[in-house]
Amino acid sequence: MSQDSLQDLQNRVRAFVNERDWEQFHSPKNLAMAMIVEAAELVEIFQWETTEQSYLMDEKKRTQVSHELADTFVYLLRLADVLGVDLIQAANQKIDLNALKYPVDKARGSNAKYTDYQ
Amino acid sequence: MSQDSLQDLQNRVRAFVNERDWEQFHSPKNLAMAMIVEAAELVEIFQWETTEQSYLMDEKKRTQVSHELADTFVYLLRLADVLGVDLIQAANQKIDLNALKYPVDKARGSNAKYTDYQ
Amino acid sequence: MSQDSLQDLQNRVRAFVNERDWEQFHSPKNLAMAMIVEAAELVEIFQWETTEQSYLMDEKKRTQVSHELADTFVYLLRLADVLGVDLIQAANQKIDLNALKYPVDKARGSNAKYTDYQ
Amino acid sequence: MSQDSLQDLQNRVRAFVNERDWEQFHSPKNLAMAMIVEAAELVEIFQWETTEQSYLMDEKKRTQVSHELADTFVYLLRLADVLGVDLIQAANQKIDLNALKYPVDKARGSNAKYTDYQ
Repeated sequence: MSQDSLQDLQNRVRAFVNERDWEQFHSPKNLAMAMIVEAAELVEIFQWETTEQSYLMDEKKRTQVSHELADTFVYLLRLADVLGVDLIQAANQKIDLNALKYPVDKARGSNAKYTDYQ
Repeated sequence: MSQDSLQDLQNRVRAFVNERDWEQFHSPKNLAMAMIVEAAELVEIFQWETTEQSYLMDEKKRTQVSHELADTFVYLLRLADVLGVDLIQAANQKIDLNALKYPVDKARGSNAKYTDYQ
Repeated sequence: MSQDSLQDLQNRVRAFVNERDWEQFHSPKNLAMAMIVEAAELVEIFQWETTEQSYLMDEKKRTQVSHELADTFVYLLRLADVLGVDLIQAANQKIDLNALKYPVDKARGSNAKYTDYQ
Repeated sequence: MSQDSLQDLQNRVRAFVNERDWEQFHSPKNLAMAMIVEAAELVEIFQWETTEQSYLMDEKKRTQVSHELADTFVYLLRLADVLGVDLIQAANQKIDLNALKYPVDKARGSNAKYTDYQ
């Protein structure tokens, strides 16, 4: 992955927003809406594909997928910025929690939700 | 933001999945579904709040918001990994495109979609 | 509302799908994806609007809103058909349950989730 | 399907909301958020299932699926009510449009979007 830091990217997004005077639209409520709209554009790409087809990419699909991943990412960074959440730290803490909820011996090869474990 | 690189985090997520033999469930199609489900859990936090309330956070809400941002982020990293997309590069390229679609003089202070510009 | 029954509409959707030999794509999994994509197109209309603006509609927005509501509705009817769920009955049963979860004296004027009631 | 009319159900939902003084929370913006959250709960049921598994239902899954379909439906009815859109009419008009976009001879057996037709 590119060596640019996540912080640099988050700063770039913030500057983009500031230059356009868009902070007024970027409430957490609105940004959560914008992010799910972008996530849905990714879902749309895969909705009629089989599982196997979803792995295959020609140039057109690669570009489309990259754009929708990027859009979702940008709103995620923006939301974290507005809410003052450190994304890297939050992700690491959540993975720690998930490791407790999904211990390897119970979770291996299973798609069950942890609440369904015996 | 934490200095851990995005690459380290993506590697950690991949190891977590491998240890549990979950690659079989992580098709792009399934991961796109999982990501939008997490994005919706973020939307749920804000759905009945006013714009102003959406900025306010007590400890309980801060924890909840951090968890949902983290879950969305983890699936985004996982999707990018499975699809072979460099997220930092994709985001920078998309911001370049957005700068062309939303030139500062037209976009300033406006919430219009670029397709509605005169 | 129009007097056409919900059943007539559901039958029309089924015939539309059959004529195009689309049953092969209409698994519950795929239809759930298609439905959330349409729901997101509705969210997109309102994402940058204030609460007050979201009530206002000119002709263009009315057409757009009607189309997205219709698309979501069509996939909902289709999902219920494929899964063999009677939507009217399911909705009435769920409202009965919600009446227990949200008794009038606790719920009045409150946007709290029932799990947060004292 | 049950013979209760859609209008009766929509009236029941409206009465439920009025009794709890919830109109203040039911802006189109908030209702669109609530609806996509319910749609996501349906997506969650299917996210790790294969296409084939998504058709199979035991009693537990049938109840869960019915509840999430019902919740999505209730918010759809509520949105249409608040926005003054006749859902049956809107759906029929949209199906008329879709019939033009997806003529049988081009659409048969194809999962392509109409914009990709030659």
